[in-house]
Amino acid sequence: MKVQGKNYRTVWMQDEKVMLIEQNLLPFEFRIFTSTNYKQTCQAISRMIVRGAGAIGATAGFAMAQACIEYNNDATKLIKARQEIENTRPTAQNLFSATKRVFTAAQKGKAKAIAEAQKIADEDVEACRLIGQYGKSLVEHELNVLTHCNAGWLAFVDFGTALSPVYQAWREGCKLHVWVDETRPRSQGARLTAWELQNEKIPHKIIADNSAAFLMEQGKIDVVITGADRITASGDVANKIGTLEKAICARYFDIPFYVAAPTSTIDIECENGNEIPIEIRSQDEIIFQKGVDKQGDMHTVKVCTPGSSGFNPAFDVTPASLISGIITEKGLIHPSEIRNIAG
Amino acid sequence: MKVQGKNYRTVWMQDEKVMLIEQNLLPFEFRIFTSTNYKQTCQAISRMIVRGAGAIGATAGFAMAQACIEYNNDATKLIKARQEIENTRPTAQNLFSATKRVFTAAQKGKAKAIAEAQKIADEDVEACRLIGQYGKSLVEHELNVLTHCNAGWLAFVDFGTALSPVYQAWREGCKLHVWVDETRPRSQGARLTAWELQNEKIPHKIIADNSAAFLMEQGKIDVVITGADRITASGDVANKIGTLEKAICARYFDIPFYVAAPTSTIDIECENGNEIPIEIRSQDEIIFQKGVDKQGDMHTVKVCTPGSSGFNPAFDVTPASLISGIITEKGLIHPSEIRNIAG
Repeated sequence: MKVQGKNYRTVWMQDEKVMLIEQNLLPFEFRIFTSTNYKQTCQAISRMIVRGAGAIGATAGFAMAQACIEYNNDATKLIKARQEIENTRPTAQNLFSATKRVFTAAQKGKAKAIAEAQKIADEDVEACRLIGQYGKSLVEHELNVLTHCNAGWLAFVDFGTALSPVYQAWREGCKLHVWVDETRPRSQGARLTAWELQNEKIPHKIIADNSAAFLMEQGKIDVVITGADRITASGDVANKIGTLEKAICARYFDIPFYVAAPTSTIDIECENGNEIPIEIRSQDEIIFQKGVDKQGDMHTVKVCTPGSSGFNPAFDVTPASLISGIITEKGLIHPSEIRNIAG
Repeated sequence: MKVQGKNYRTVWMQDEKVMLIEQNLLPFEFRIFTSTNYKQTCQAISRMIVRGAGAIGATAGFAMAQACIEYNNDATKLIKARQEIENTRPTAQNLFSATKRVFTAAQKGKAKAIAEAQKIADEDVEACRLIGQYGKSLVEHELNVLTHCNAGWLAFVDFGTALSPVYQAWREGCKLHVWVDETRPRSQGARLTAWELQNEKIPHKIIADNSAAFLMEQGKIDVVITGADRITASGDVANKIGTLEKAICARYFDIPFYVAAPTSTIDIECENGNEIPIEIRSQDEIIFQKGVDKQGDMHTVKVCTPGSSGFNPAFDVTPASLISGIITEKGLIHPSEIRNIAG
């Protein structure tokens, strides 16, 4: 997608170098991080220069390819390198499947490893593009889309999931407007989704997370689309905290609520939402906010009563019963059809 | 209520001086503002040193009493002073009724004016105390209360509305815990409600506004209590943006949702919520956040994508159908009974 008018992916490989958008500097600074070796690429993952399931997976694949080049495909060294890469973010499923694929390809030579890493990134792009194709009809005749958190291209290699239908409808000339949930506590909506939309020149407005029901009641939201962190066999969806609230409000006002995600997000072993462990993150994300002052200097400030503590669940689970449809690279399905398209 | 172990009201008069908690410094600094004349008290209202319907009303009454003293009850000068006081916050209903009452009392002498101003403050305290008495049974057997925004004592002279049942149940030895909605964009929950609860040593945790549905789903919220900015004849309630979302979620999870407010909040001329104009406030409240750094220095920082704009409705309307009951100083009523207790 575009940044200051120029097309970018979140991560790409150029000879033996891996290039990454430094996402931890956004939205205040746009800079490309250049990693010349796999250890640097590992750091880019662990330091969250790159984030988002699809983008992490592609980066891990490229890191494995870099290791093949650096170690001239030495099997013993590659096993160690693979472990290092897999230790960067121990819970990201895409990361493990990417390292495995490139490691296996490496047995047929360095060129094959590099090609496989490239293929992983390209597949991610294609899945997200297809999600946009299948989803765009949902926004084509809709003027106002609400989205929560960031399920845009920054979380993948390109296009994203929840925003892919928006981007593709927009490119085909559809008029639309996006309401961007700020998405406290980490404010990925205000900081990443808004940044993406602004670079694509798509009309949008950031709202406090409290405003969605009001806008729905006023008839100002036609459809809600969010991403997913995990989809269960029964069609329940774990996603960023607050997604459940938006889904309940959408149902109350009879507004369609869609989830967009690649089928790799489906965890068929998990029967329903109760089985998904919810990560409780540091209260500091609630208590402190980071931003730039008028001079452009970054500050971390306390925004709550000193001494009071916070409670910070990072995800919630939206039951299948509140979801109008799930947009995947295999098509738009009803949550009850998850088993048919998984794997 | 208590501040650092000592009892305070938000505003009180001592001889000819009006003393006010400087609410615009909270929660980072606790300081008392001393106003020696009515013009200073006007400034305290317009500069939002004091805020909240009940507290503004009492302050305006005291300002009028100060004017009586300063102008030795000169009728012409008092008319001008009354206008000045009424121009400080032109939409606050309590302000007008307070100036009118003290102005009228002044016709019987300065002492009567001062007594009337004192009576207004005392009546506010008593109404809030009674709300607590009528509401405390709702939280007595409940362990976990969710509240939104600040409807605590800082918004009134003492006790508050939504928090008054909490304070009174707590004082009588009931164990409870309060979930405090941060309440973006102005964060009155994180900054004022949490500050109040901490000073009373009541267990509480600040949550992102996105977390309520998750906590409800987990069985961690037993009752929701909020304040009200205006109550219509049909029992619809205008309150801080986000209240509607909490009410919809409470209904979805079958959790009781109460509104606490004095009967002075009822606007019997207003038939239902559609007639209430919703104030759209500056987008700067979304785009910027204010807080203190490690050194205690205050900074205003931009927390959103530079160049993106925000949309900031300040209130929403919760329909009577979602409200379990309204707690007033005249008792706990069903929203359909508003006409019986108004006026």
